[in-house]
Amino acid sequence: MSRIAYVNGRYVPQREASVNVEDRGYQFGDGVYEVIHVHDGRFVDTGLHLARLARSLRELAIPKPMEDGALLVVLREVVRRNRIREGIVYMQVSRGVARRDHAFPRDVAPALVVTARHGKAFPREIDTWTGTAITAPDIRWGRVDIKTVNLLPNCLAKQKAREAGAYEAILIDRDGNVTEGSSTTVWAVDEDGVLRTRHLDHHILPGCTRAAVISLMEEAGIRFEERGLSEAELRAAREIFLTSATSYVKPMVRLDGVAVGEGTPGPVARRLFELFARHADGAAHNVPPASPRLASCGGIG
Amino acid sequence: MSRIAYVNGRYVPQREASVNVEDRGYQFGDGVYEVIHVHDGRFVDTGLHLARLARSLRELAIPKPMEDGALLVVLREVVRRNRIREGIVYMQVSRGVARRDHAFPRDVAPALVVTARHGKAFPREIDTWTGTAITAPDIRWGRVDIKTVNLLPNCLAKQKAREAGAYEAILIDRDGNVTEGSSTTVWAVDEDGVLRTRHLDHHILPGCTRAAVISLMEEAGIRFEERGLSEAELRAAREIFLTSATSYVKPMVRLDGVAVGEGTPGPVARRLFELFARHADGAAHNVPPASPRLASCGGIG
Repeated sequence: MSRIAYVNGRYVPQREASVNVEDRGYQFGDGVYEVIHVHDGRFVDTGLHLARLARSLRELAIPKPMEDGALLVVLREVVRRNRIREGIVYMQVSRGVARRDHAFPRDVAPALVVTARHGKAFPREIDTWTGTAITAPDIRWGRVDIKTVNLLPNCLAKQKAREAGAYEAILIDRDGNVTEGSSTTVWAVDEDGVLRTRHLDHHILPGCTRAAVISLMEEAGIRFEERGLSEAELRAAREIFLTSATSYVKPMVRLDGVAVGEGTPGPVARRLFELFARHADGAAHNVPPASPRLASCGGIG
Repeated sequence: MSRIAYVNGRYVPQREASVNVEDRGYQFGDGVYEVIHVHDGRFVDTGLHLARLARSLRELAIPKPMEDGALLVVLREVVRRNRIREGIVYMQVSRGVARRDHAFPRDVAPALVVTARHGKAFPREIDTWTGTAITAPDIRWGRVDIKTVNLLPNCLAKQKAREAGAYEAILIDRDGNVTEGSSTTVWAVDEDGVLRTRHLDHHILPGCTRAAVISLMEEAGIRFEERGLSEAELRAAREIFLTSATSYVKPMVRLDGVAVGEGTPGPVARRLFELFARHADGAAHNVPPASPRLASCGGIG
């Protein structure tokens, strides 16, 4: 089946879906994006993703290409035309097409591209959903809290992981502290049994799945700390797992070739995996979220 | 006149020149570029630019889209079709079009886009070629020596300069040292009268005009040091000027609103401006370069 994409007002076969060579997304990486998990035909954590998209645009002074309601119509239509039940929808907004000049152009309309694709069904067994990680230096820029397409350092780290046979590269900053994965949030249960993930600032992306998991933990009374780990603490961790819109809650059972804990998913990852699976199912079936923090994250179908 | 671009084997009107939305240049900033100054219809420092393009591609493991000889034919054809006598030619190579995944795709052909545009004639009077600069934090990634399209931090800095009414933002790293401009190399004559520019490493772009100017100085017996400046040294400098393929040698007469030296182009900038103008004319008229370091930089017309 030919995939269908949305590009600036038109639904077109994906092979014909194109942007001008002077689109600033192409020449400067001057654009932002979001990826939303589609589960059972509906979107998971939509509200969080749209709020983050709005924030990214605001930080870069790129106007919204359309209001959220209209964007949701486009997202839903792309998913419908591609007959996605399980998969992802991808949206990218760039500052638009303009004569090449580093400074922002005036009076340019932002460009919006939406694509979608099928993915494997949401995993039901955490034991089939494990992976391994390597560590790599975090050499990204100083505003990775904005979800831009300046992703080359992330690509290089992910490629390094791939070449090592690993799922993810966990990034270590120049002070020797863990920031996040190349495309995921990093969590660990430390030597003392404390569940930790790094606090938010300009040096990690505010993960939507991270936010959803935090809300779920608060509802369930699970303790955690928003406090970063050093590389040494990461290596001594009992459990390490990742979260993202496409990784869900994914245990890392080896780090740089060394078993993490007992080399199998730990009890904290198991519990959060179950909670997140219920959350994703709930979103898909429009169960009203219990927590106000998740009030905007339900299904849209 | 409709501009003509080259896109992956075809010459097309620029408004129709497009790349697929899954081009990795668009989704990941996974591409590199060069800008060559066209003077009197010929290219300036071609050899340096093509060598740097090859290096950028090599560092990212992107195959060359074609050999240099073939690329030169394309560059020349784009310049010819756009009837450029004075201006620039821009070339961008991305890793190509592939299903979105951070890691490198296999067996994908790199994409090549070439555009050109008219520019003002090469300035003949340095006194009409001055500008002002501001300082801004350098928040770029750790491999800006590769000339990639991950240029958003550069755009943000340039925009900040534009909003301050300045030509360029000179970037200061977190250790308080000058790296370079948002799209230029920074030079200064320090308080002691020593001409300095930062040494090359992963934190500045190896400027082609920088290299050309260094060769010209060596031929002319002008002393300089490849040694970076602190922010304080920059503020105390007698002269500050920038070099790039489109800035040539451009004196900055104010820094953050304060006059640099006497607030007019200094003697060192004047001398280098003259040398570079002769070099550019030489390239345009196929004068064999005197220095072996410039042997590959002549005109190609």
